[in-house]
Formats: sequence, structure tokens, C-alpha cells
Amino acid sequence: MQITLETLRAIVGPAHVLTGDDVHSRRVDWMTGAPCQAGAIVRPADTEQVAAVMRACHAVQQPIVTHGGLTGLVHGAEASPDELVISLERLTAIEEIDQVGGTLTVQAGAPLQRVQEAAKEVGLQFPLDLGARGSCTIGGNIATNAGGVRVIRYGMMRQQVLGLEAVMADGRVVSSMNHMLKNNAGFDLKQLFIGSEGTLGIVTRAVLRLQPPTPCEQTAMVACPSFEALTGLLSHMGKALGGGLGAFEVMWQNHYRLLTETLGRHTPPIATEHPFYVIIDSLGSDAKRNATQFSEALESALESELIVDAVIAQSSTQRDGLWAIREDIEGLVKGLAPVLTFDVSLPIADMQRYTNALEAQLTQRWADAKLVVFGHLGDGNLHISVSVGSGDPEVRREVEAMIYQPLAALGGSVSAEHGIGLEKRPWLSTCRSSAEIELMHTLKQALDPLNLLNRGKVLQETL
Amino acid sequence: MQITLETLRAIVGPAHVLTGDDVHSRRVDWMTGAPCQAGAIVRPADTEQVAAVMRACHAVQQPIVTHGGLTGLVHGAEASPDELVISLERLTAIEEIDQVGGTLTVQAGAPLQRVQEAAKEVGLQFPLDLGARGSCTIGGNIATNAGGVRVIRYGMMRQQVLGLEAVMADGRVVSSMNHMLKNNAGFDLKQLFIGSEGTLGIVTRAVLRLQPPTPCEQTAMVACPSFEALTGLLSHMGKALGGGLGAFEVMWQNHYRLLTETLGRHTPPIATEHPFYVIIDSLGSDAKRNATQFSEALESALESELIVDAVIAQSSTQRDGLWAIREDIEGLVKGLAPVLTFDVSLPIADMQRYTNALEAQLTQRWADAKLVVFGHLGDGNLHISVSVGSGDPEVRREVEAMIYQPLAALGGSVSAEHGIGLEKRPWLSTCRSSAEIELMHTLKQALDPLNLLNRGKVLQETL
Repeated sequence: MQITLETLRAIVGPAHVLTGDDVHSRRVDWMTGAPCQAGAIVRPADTEQVAAVMRACHAVQQPIVTHGGLTGLVHGAEASPDELVISLERLTAIEEIDQVGGTLTVQAGAPLQRVQEAAKEVGLQFPLDLGARGSCTIGGNIATNAGGVRVIRYGMMRQQVLGLEAVMADGRVVSSMNHMLKNNAGFDLKQLFIGSEGTLGIVTRAVLRLQPPTPCEQTAMVACPSFEALTGLLSHMGKALGGGLGAFEVMWQNHYRLLTETLGRHTPPIATEHPFYVIIDSLGSDAKRNATQFSEALESALESELIVDAVIAQSSTQRDGLWAIREDIEGLVKGLAPVLTFDVSLPIADMQRYTNALEAQLTQRWADAKLVVFGHLGDGNLHISVSVGSGDPEVRREVEAMIYQPLAALGGSVSAEHGIGLEKRPWLSTCRSSAEIELMHTLKQALDPLNLLNRGKVLQETL
Repeated sequence: MQITLETLRAIVGPAHVLTGDDVHSRRVDWMTGAPCQAGAIVRPADTEQVAAVMRACHAVQQPIVTHGGLTGLVHGAEASPDELVISLERLTAIEEIDQVGGTLTVQAGAPLQRVQEAAKEVGLQFPLDLGARGSCTIGGNIATNAGGVRVIRYGMMRQQVLGLEAVMADGRVVSSMNHMLKNNAGFDLKQLFIGSEGTLGIVTRAVLRLQPPTPCEQTAMVACPSFEALTGLLSHMGKALGGGLGAFEVMWQNHYRLLTETLGRHTPPIATEHPFYVIIDSLGSDAKRNATQFSEALESALESELIVDAVIAQSSTQRDGLWAIREDIEGLVKGLAPVLTFDVSLPIADMQRYTNALEAQLTQRWADAKLVVFGHLGDGNLHISVSVGSGDPEVRREVEAMIYQPLAALGGSVSAEHGIGLEKRPWLSTCRSSAEIELMHTLKQALDPLNLLNRGKVLQETL
């Protein structure tokens, strides 16, 4: 490292500069358990200390990697021995909640779930939700523009952020802590830092938008007889529930069957012979009205043969049971080990052709290949899991090519919600033109000319 | 001008290079009717011609101003005799509608209303809506991040844009025509061009997100007995209507009374003695359910004394009659002539204190000053109209100071939805820190180093 531990200790105190085993015992990738290789980890107490660390790093050209909850899936938090990790784990305060304005001001290291709970305590909600809610942080959610299961209703993290504060590569603090829903006074600077994976600045605080509560939740699992019926159902439920459609999570038969019948991890609530299964949430404020509207919408879907079977959860236990199948990532990983996982988006209309062609290609190459597909259909987002008996890098690259290359012609994306990090960097040009990538480099050069911030993530170091 | 008319004619053809009266007969400001002063207007036919014009301009350092529908309110379309106007009036094609994916691909010069109608024709909706819908263009909506009356439900223009194409200052085309709801493959470049008022690039095409239709609309006008009741009502309706609250447009008594009683332009549907009036829209898909939910929500608001009177529109004619009061900008301009108009945002909780203090200050300075306030309360956005008997620049500056300076302490904004343009540029630093403005200059310098694009708008030419 270019920076000395003494310099860091002088800024944050000796207890907050970690080295050796305290660094290596941290896992930067929860799928592989890979240890952190950074030269040191520094834990600033607040924005001022983050800025002071960054000024010191800038002075000696010390590259840094910012750490949040380490729940990312694309190796965006990896660090080499010559890199310093700045962990925001001490910046966890929820600073202010404005009930009338519906805003929550928070430090970047606060876990998502704490923000959800704090909003609930004042009778509002913070709607972003994903499986890692207990450990992922608001700063990480911002840096990766997190998605999750409520995007169809509330949008991604980008839509939840009203303002933020960031420390730039030279240690300057840009505080853009807007609380207004509408603010067209100049360029919307926060957009630079949302979804750029820590490469343009370190997000230290944010103002989040809260939403009115939707205390009444109806959940059903349904079976669809065909892909046409599935897309028809999405359109039907969108219309029938008005603004109330809160989730539309599809499981291909290969996913549903694996986690119920094959592995026996869940009792199938509906027989396993149908091609598609959907978990549908309806969010409302009036229990009776919500229930009536929901069951009427499902009945008319049955009548028009968009669905062939349906189970409506009658209790929160039943609801959790239905969602448990969809959220059983552990079962998926175990059942398909060694599993290769992917997160892509593509036009909904092309999805069936795409997954069929992929399966054919996989099984032609590896006779016992397994493909499992689920995802946020309404968002055009599929999570694809593949098992071909090996997790070797060259095998993975071959599977990546099968999955990513067809997306170019479809106008899809190699990353719907996980980001690029290191893992998808070689594939960025599959879905971004050279003009786009050039403009990304222009931004990186303008904001981080010494290339100190999360070096080599998202973009190659040189064009 | 640096560029010759011959060069321009060679690119777009002689019929599409306008000079003299053809230039001066265009009004760049619909409030003042100020004529266009540009050296010439060029009308390219497509992106390629825009790029060719821009390459030619770049070669000779010719500054340009982009024109859309010319409905802006902050002098963002003004051009001097040494500037060339690039008008996108020939780029009006709706290129594609994807009904399943819910997207619409359009050229930047298409009027908003045509896009709304095209979406409706395929059973979907494009929800952005504002008074200028017939003349404002999609490109202008993007460049200014337009707001309007549906923001509370669907967000501003930024949220409606999935992808776009822009011509850069040097004539390069950056095509980022993403159709995906979720795409985290690298930096989200479109954000640079949304809301930057043509200073970072020329938006030529866009992919817009369509929404499920909400064919059933309930509209009421209600009277609130106090500001506390008004904010209580906003919260109550948000909860009671679930996702269905489609508009919450507040008129201060001074606005309501002016347009009904004082000017006699509208018959008051409710007596004029109450302090606040609200137009509330509920959007739904089931007529009966929507009507029941809406009237129940209003009844319970009456019971808890959040409102003291209410009129629910029983027909679309009645609905239009209620909205006509709110949308009667012509009446406002005539009734207050010479009128000074402002568009600000501030925390909802501070609004009453702010407008009371403003009124006191105005009438202390000008005994017969009139203040009229209305706006999108749920968005924190007020439109303020002031009449002090003069529209002279120095008088305007004095009123601006009264309106803008208090916003700094409140964390408000000098522009909620109209943008900065030239008009608000002196006030940008009231609500943006020097670090923020510096970063805006960094972006401008990185993307338009020769300062050719809408020069001097939003940002001063030098720091």
C-alpha cells in the first residue's frame, strides 16, 4: 500500500485500522466465501473521517475499495493487497425521519432492514426489499442500484433516493442531501453515484423517500398453462389490481419442481406438472376490499384460462410458505452444486424462446446439464441457475457465452440488478455500445482521474 | 455565426435552414412573446442530420441552442444572433410500441399529447401530463425533467424514460436506447441528459415506459379548514386510496377566490371562505370499486374534520369544470397582470409559515401586492404568482429575493419542475452548495469542453 497505517490511525484511531487476520477473516463473496485480500481495512466514524482518509489516499495515490454489507454477487468488493478497504460499518445512524414529508435521512452503513423497520415504526414504509435485507446496507443498495421483489410497484433503489452525500476521489465532500420530491435546480448529481458501484465516489449519507403503508397484503401462488397465458396474466393483474400489484414472481417448472418434488425441501402447494408458477402479491390499505379485488381478479383469470390452478394464502404462515419456495436460494445452491448463477434482463416476449434455446444448447454440450429459471417477470428480469458438473473458470466462461451472447440481438442486459463488478466486465460490451462505454470512461476520468475508487470494477482500466 | 448557411443547407437541404423573419417570428417565451434572435434555425430530419450539423458546428466552434415545443418558462430556449438553433420539429415519429413489454420508442420532437394518445390506442397509458401537453415535446420533457399533475402517482419524466439517444457536443451519437425496466450494466448514462436542459447533449430519441391503464377516474374538490387538516388529508388519502391517489392539487384561498368570485371566470363549486381547496383524483380500474373507495375515504375525512365540504364530480363535464379552475393559467395571468410567476419546492410542513411570511413581506413593501398560491402539495411543489403593479426587472429581482432566499434555510429548491435556464441562474447557489455547482461544471467541462451546447444556461460560463 502507498498509505501508511500510521496515517490512517491518526485519522480514525488505532482500533479502527484492521490488518492481518482481521482483514482476511472477512469474506468478500458470500457465494464462494473468498477472503478479503486488502492491505488493510479502515473504519471511519463519519463523513468527515471518510473525507480525511480519502484526502490522505489521494495525496499518495492510494487506491481504495468501499465495503458495505458484502452481499454483492459480482465481485465488486474484492480488493488486492495493495488496496485499502474503507468500510462504512460504523456509519449506521438513522439521523432523521420526516413523517409529513415522508423522508428518512440515514448514514450509508445502515442495514436495509433497519431502515424498513424505522419507517414502519412511524406508520410509513420503505419499499425496497430483497433477500439480503438483514445484512445489505443502504450505501450498497445505492452503489448497486438494488432491485428486489417490489420493483414492479415501487421501482429500483434509484427511485427511492432523494438526495445523497458522497466523498469524491480527492476527498472533497459533495453534499446533495435534497429532501424534495421535485428539484430541478441544476444537474441531478446523485444519479452519478447511484449504480456506479463505488467507482465515482463514496456514498456516505442519503435521504430516502418513504411511502404510505400498505398494511394489507394478499398473496397467491398460481399455475399457468403456457407462456402466452403467463404474459396475459401479468397484463391482466396489472389492470385488475390498479396500482396494487406488489409482486409478480415467476418460477419456471424446472425451478418449482427442483425445490419441491426433487429435493423435497417444500411441499408443493400446487401439482408440479404445469410449465409456469407465479407468486402474486396485492398490496392495499383496506383488508376486505383488497381481498375481494384480489380473488375477483384471480377468478376472472381462471375463467379466461390464464391460470389453471391457484392457492390464496389464508394466513401469514401460509404466505411465508409460498414465498419460501421462491426465496430458497440455499436449496438452489445445494441442489445444483456446483451452481453457476446469472442475472439478466430481456424483453418479456422473447423469454420463452431464449430459455428454450439456452436449455437445448446446454444439454447438447453437457448431457446432464440442468437449467433452473425464475425471476421478476414484470421487470423483464430472469435469474438463471446452471449446473453442468463443474464450476471451473473456463466452463463458466463457456456457459456465460451461451447466456450473454444472445442478449445482444434481443436488446437485453447482462446485468439486470446485480451490477457489473469484476465478474461481468468482459461482457459489458455485449449490451453497451462502444460509444456508451467511451462516455462511461469520460465520466470516470472526470471524477476520478487518478483511478483510485474501486479500480478496475465495471470498466477496464484503459479503453 | 461561425458556421455558414451553405454548410447547413448541404446537410439538411435549403428548405430547412431558416433565416430572417422565419426566425424572428418564432416566440421563445410564451409568457412574454419574446422573438427568437438566433442567427438561423436548422431543421434536421433525423439523428444522422443532427449529428452532421453538430459535427460541423464543432469544427468551427459554433454554439447552438436546441428547440423543442418552446413551452419552457425559464428562458432556456433563448438564443443570441451568434447562436444557431437546432429545432427538432421534424423528428416527430412514434417508431415502435411494444405492448407486452410496455414501451414506446419515439423521436424527441413528438408532442407529449401524441404519445399519450398512441399509448391509449394500444390499451396502455403514458402518465406524464401537464397543461402544455399539446405543444411541449418529449425531448423538451426529457431535457427539463418535466413534472405536472401526475407526479404524486407516477413520478417525473425521469422515471418514465428507459433509454435515450443523444448527440454529443462533438457530433458523436450515444445511443443508449435501453428497453429494459432493469439494466445495471454500467453507468446509467441517460441520467446525464435528463434535466440538464440541453447543456450536455441533444436528445434525439427515447424509449418511454408505458403503464397499465387506469380507465376509471374519480375527481373531487374539497375544502380544508386549516393547514394541519390539509396535510392530514394528504396522508389520509394516500393511505385510504392505496396506490390510487392520482392527483392532490391544492389551491390557497387567494387562488380559488381570484378565479371564481373576483374575476367571475368560474362558478365556485364550494363557498369561498375556506383557507384551502384541493382537487383530488383517484385512479382505478374498476368503476364501482373505485367510486366506493373514494367516497368512503372522503366521508371518513369529513367525519374526522380534515375537510369541511366536498363535491364529487358526477360526469366528465363536472370533472373538467373542477379542473378548469386549477388549470386556468390565462385567468391568473390576466387577473394579476403584470404577473410574476415562480415554481419552488420546500418541505410541506413549512409551507404555511413560508407563504404567510411572504405575503406579509410583499404587502409591507407594496401595499396593494397580491399573492396567489397553488401547487402540487404532495410533491412539495408550490406555484407562486405575485402582482405588485410592475414587471420591471429590478422589481422582479426584489420579489425573487423574497421568494428564493428563505428557501435556503428550509432546504427547498428555487426550481421544482421548471428548470434553471437563464432566469434562475443567479439563484442556483441559493439551493446548491459550491461543491455541487463545482461538480456540475466538471460534468459540463467533460462533456462539452468547447461550451457549444445551450451556452450560459443553468451554469455561468465560468466558475
